[in-house]
Amino acid sequence: MPGMPPSPSSPRFAYLGPEGTFAEAALSRAIATAGGRRDPQPSVAAALAAVRSGDADAALVPLENSVEGSVPATMDGLADGDPLVITREVYLDVAFVLAVRPGTAPAAVRSVASHPHALAQTSGRLAELLPGLSPLPSASTAAAAAAVAAGEVDAAVCAAIAAERYGLDTLVDDVADHPGAVTRFVLVSRPGPLPAPTGNDKTSLVAIVGDRTGALLELLREFAVRGISLTRIESRPTRERHWFYSFSMDCEGHVADSRVGEALAALHRVCDDVRFLGSYARADGRENRAVPPESSDEAFVEAGQWLAGVRAGEI
Amino acid sequence: MPGMPPSPSSPRFAYLGPEGTFAEAALSRAIATAGGRRDPQPSVAAALAAVRSGDADAALVPLENSVEGSVPATMDGLADGDPLVITREVYLDVAFVLAVRPGTAPAAVRSVASHPHALAQTSGRLAELLPGLSPLPSASTAAAAAAVAAGEVDAAVCAAIAAERYGLDTLVDDVADHPGAVTRFVLVSRPGPLPAPTGNDKTSLVAIVGDRTGALLELLREFAVRGISLTRIESRPTRERHWFYSFSMDCEGHVADSRVGEALAALHRVCDDVRFLGSYARADGRENRAVPPESSDEAFVEAGQWLAGVRAGEI
Amino acid sequence: MPGMPPSPSSPRFAYLGPEGTFAEAALSRAIATAGGRRDPQPSVAAALAAVRSGDADAALVPLENSVEGSVPATMDGLADGDPLVITREVYLDVAFVLAVRPGTAPAAVRSVASHPHALAQTSGRLAELLPGLSPLPSASTAAAAAAVAAGEVDAAVCAAIAAERYGLDTLVDDVADHPGAVTRFVLVSRPGPLPAPTGNDKTSLVAIVGDRTGALLELLREFAVRGISLTRIESRPTRERHWFYSFSMDCEGHVADSRVGEALAALHRVCDDVRFLGSYARADGRENRAVPPESSDEAFVEAGQWLAGVRAGEI
Amino acid sequence: MPGMPPSPSSPRFAYLGPEGTFAEAALSRAIATAGGRRDPQPSVAAALAAVRSGDADAALVPLENSVEGSVPATMDGLADGDPLVITREVYLDVAFVLAVRPGTAPAAVRSVASHPHALAQTSGRLAELLPGLSPLPSASTAAAAAAVAAGEVDAAVCAAIAAERYGLDTLVDDVADHPGAVTRFVLVSRPGPLPAPTGNDKTSLVAIVGDRTGALLELLREFAVRGISLTRIESRPTRERHWFYSFSMDCEGHVADSRVGEALAALHRVCDDVRFLGSYARADGRENRAVPPESSDEAFVEAGQWLAGVRAGEI
Repeated sequence: MPGMPPSPSSPRFAYLGPEGTFAEAALSRAIATAGGRRDPQPSVAAALAAVRSGDADAALVPLENSVEGSVPATMDGLADGDPLVITREVYLDVAFVLAVRPGTAPAAVRSVASHPHALAQTSGRLAELLPGLSPLPSASTAAAAAAVAAGEVDAAVCAAIAAERYGLDTLVDDVADHPGAVTRFVLVSRPGPLPAPTGNDKTSLVAIVGDRTGALLELLREFAVRGISLTRIESRPTRERHWFYSFSMDCEGHVADSRVGEALAALHRVCDDVRFLGSYARADGRENRAVPPESSDEAFVEAGQWLAGVRAGEI
Repeated sequence: MPGMPPSPSSPRFAYLGPEGTFAEAALSRAIATAGGRRDPQPSVAAALAAVRSGDADAALVPLENSVEGSVPATMDGLADGDPLVITREVYLDVAFVLAVRPGTAPAAVRSVASHPHALAQTSGRLAELLPGLSPLPSASTAAAAAAVAAGEVDAAVCAAIAAERYGLDTLVDDVADHPGAVTRFVLVSRPGPLPAPTGNDKTSLVAIVGDRTGALLELLREFAVRGISLTRIESRPTRERHWFYSFSMDCEGHVADSRVGEALAALHRVCDDVRFLGSYARADGRENRAVPPESSDEAFVEAGQWLAGVRAGEI
Repeated sequence: MPGMPPSPSSPRFAYLGPEGTFAEAALSRAIATAGGRRDPQPSVAAALAAVRSGDADAALVPLENSVEGSVPATMDGLADGDPLVITREVYLDVAFVLAVRPGTAPAAVRSVASHPHALAQTSGRLAELLPGLSPLPSASTAAAAAAVAAGEVDAAVCAAIAAERYGLDTLVDDVADHPGAVTRFVLVSRPGPLPAPTGNDKTSLVAIVGDRTGALLELLREFAVRGISLTRIESRPTRERHWFYSFSMDCEGHVADSRVGEALAALHRVCDDVRFLGSYARADGRENRAVPPESSDEAFVEAGQWLAGVRAGEI
Repeated sequence: MPGMPPSPSSPRFAYLGPEGTFAEAALSRAIATAGGRRDPQPSVAAALAAVRSGDADAALVPLENSVEGSVPATMDGLADGDPLVITREVYLDVAFVLAVRPGTAPAAVRSVASHPHALAQTSGRLAELLPGLSPLPSASTAAAAAAVAAGEVDAAVCAAIAAERYGLDTLVDDVADHPGAVTRFVLVSRPGPLPAPTGNDKTSLVAIVGDRTGALLELLREFAVRGISLTRIESRPTRERHWFYSFSMDCEGHVADSRVGEALAALHRVCDDVRFLGSYARADGRENRAVPPESSDEAFVEAGQWLAGVRAGEI
């Protein structure tokens, strides 16, 4: 597994549990061919802590969702504490199903439960399908499925994997108000050898800047002058320093690329703090933009040789 | 009330309910001296819908929190649908208390409930204070307080206002893992006459740009060349157009200011779409940066006169 | 004549004389169909002074040469003193001929004279054609031709028009070391109604900035954000203020265009001083770049209407 | 002499002659303590050619004048042909004197001569001092002094050094219309070891860019993002490639400085061509601006180490 320190025994994976959530499905996709132990954790913070403490070799956590946006717990969990790096990204369709005990007819559903986030994304459809019902909150979508299986409620909004696991029937296949949501998960581990460049990579980082006019503009300029595209930028309040802001960003390219390396070094000079969060293969099915000729590794190498000649008085 | 259409009778305010949440406390501060009806709503979307439909004259909703970041439901609710504008902002300290029925000793607490967001912000302290307990999710912090009052659970993590309302005692005053959190609420209404400039104003807007390299850099440049500081910028996925991004921003100044007006007009030209979300008095206790002389209204007026002279052939 | 105040009698034109120089040829092209008096002047300064004093209605002076670069006397003469504006530009091929009295054989040429600038542009060819001769300086290329006619020297480097005027024969047609030189002349007059936009115009101006880092970058940014191309930029020391620099620029478009007008007004705010030097039809046979849709007059008008609506509370 | 290849015998210096011009005075200042041969050359091109061919070890040529601006022959002579580098700059006050044969009274002056450039800079004062006289052109200011000594004309506008050399008396000490002119000369040689950084250096270069909108803006941005101030920028038409422009620039700092080196390497990538013209001690009596902390060599070294750690997976 690229980017992960070798493990004496088989690797241990933490993920945002409980079993039967989307995170478990994403983990299965991420490490399809790998063995290893899978430990559900009660929160993103707990999953990251397990990696930091060495209890796990890697953790799979959600980073952002195409409908709900970024996941604050993951953003902050990666920005603070001991360094962790992303070694892989996984995109997962997050279709919600309406699951019931086998044999339950729609008209027989008297109560429905799910995690409040899932209820928020399905409130419109639920109001149509189950008029008059007040959905009940549960600790997770999987917990709602378990509650259905236990007979505590009649229906759950959950992942298909949870319905299957708890032996439930699917009454409606996709009950999201805005169908087609995709969640991006990342696999993170303690720092170690980076995944090798694949030619279609992304690099993640967090930059912290003071309360200065134009600080963000300066940041962006360092990417722009080197022909690097950003694919995501989020601002977050910093928890520890008042009136400082952190910008969480993904750019195209690998830190091993000259242009990306020089840009990151520039951020290190210009920002109050920069945290490298990993370079890894792009997995959203899209191709990075073509690198402008003047930003290619060849151009950097040639320019470096020219500069060396100039400094040596040979040109 | 500036920015609100005159109401034949007393104004009606919607807010993110239920009663006893922080939003009600913020509303009380926003309209301290105003009368009017106050209608709690089950969701941000419902509160905004009440204004759009005319059922309410204004709605008070949370926009961002100093610890948790922006509130997606409000961001998206203002960006999509019929136009709404912010006419006022309110900052509220959001201290969570641990509330119990009068006479309950700490050792007697066998269960604790709250909204999952509140539980996330207090999980560390709760683990210390009530070791071994698995917190239960509730639909809102106020609902948890009500459940305590009803004897369904022993303790609630809620606002002081809820403890008071349900006749509970406060066991711990501030149980947040990161104390000092502040939530920024905004009062929004249907478009109408803008609040008059106060000299210390902010302007909010949403800009939608296509998937082009440098689009954000272009956006920021329009503010920078006119000497305008941004106080907030958030990127959000657009729900309706794939691969388009929306940037939600606050800048210093009022749209009535020349520099702000020209910058917004420039965004209107340059972006795929721009939505004006209001100009209103800054209320976070800070002063806007000094406007550079070349960006003052006087400089714009003088430049405009000079240009008119040039075009008339008089210079 | 666009841009010139109506003259009670026929117009009077000053130009950089004497008769028989390239400036006279350029003037003939500029005012081909116009009548009027033509007064040669001993210097660019004198030609401009004649217009300022009212002795002339317009002056034709050289602005830049494709080989030698800008003409300092014209740059400074337009930047200082009472305002003057360019109403037309004329491009003229400036081929130098080697002229002798009729019947003079090449081998019989014992002396050659011309203006030092012309000698500088032909020194290589002259050394080949007339080896061993030390060229003599003259006050103008036409004066050299006159000296040949008077028998004072044997050959002159001059314009074809001068050879013709003084009855000389042309020994060599084009003696420039870098053939193909083109000089750009401009017709200037006192401020008055501007030439109407033609759809393919240029605008000239001089901006004075203090000794600040990035001042030029700021200047250029004002054009860049509005989609305006610069076709020329020259820096000049300012004669009157030490450590201030002036930038003489031509941009595409007419000051009547929204984008150009807004950019000039921005320079007026940002710079220590800006002098408008005219908007006039482009005459170098090239087309302006296509105006980006977001920088078109239509886009500005629409953005202005949108802004007016926003300010009126209608959006 | 820094930057010059070792010479078996004593060094040979070429300069823009003839003897008695300002260039000779500047050379004396530049190499005050050095011995060596001094060869006047008839033109800037000839002086540079002498260095290129090895006939001279270095050449002293004028680069720009505080009143007249840049010297095209030097700009182009350094930009084209085999590479040459500047190893020293010298600033010289260029006061023109009005010189006559000893005993000549002002009223007895019937003719005056000088190089046309000198006549241009003194025409106003000459018209006052010697009303009614038409100045005569000469090949150089020193040639005019020689002509006075020879009795061919009565007065010369020349350098004090020329009056002295030809045994003339000074009638008027400073006859410039704009007194206080300063000419900047540069000493150039074939490429070799660079002068060591002094802490107050300048770097000169020529960048060639195609006819693209924003090319100059891109150039300037490479300096701006690295905290480097430009002290001079001139645009010149390129002689060899139509519609390509060259920008001749001086920036603060030495190419051995990290920020300058990285900026030059960036220009090498981004521009069609870049020519390094030398790093040398600043000699205009001014101090470079303070280098921003984030652009210091220390910051670059630290950032480089951080990047190496990131790439090695150690962070």
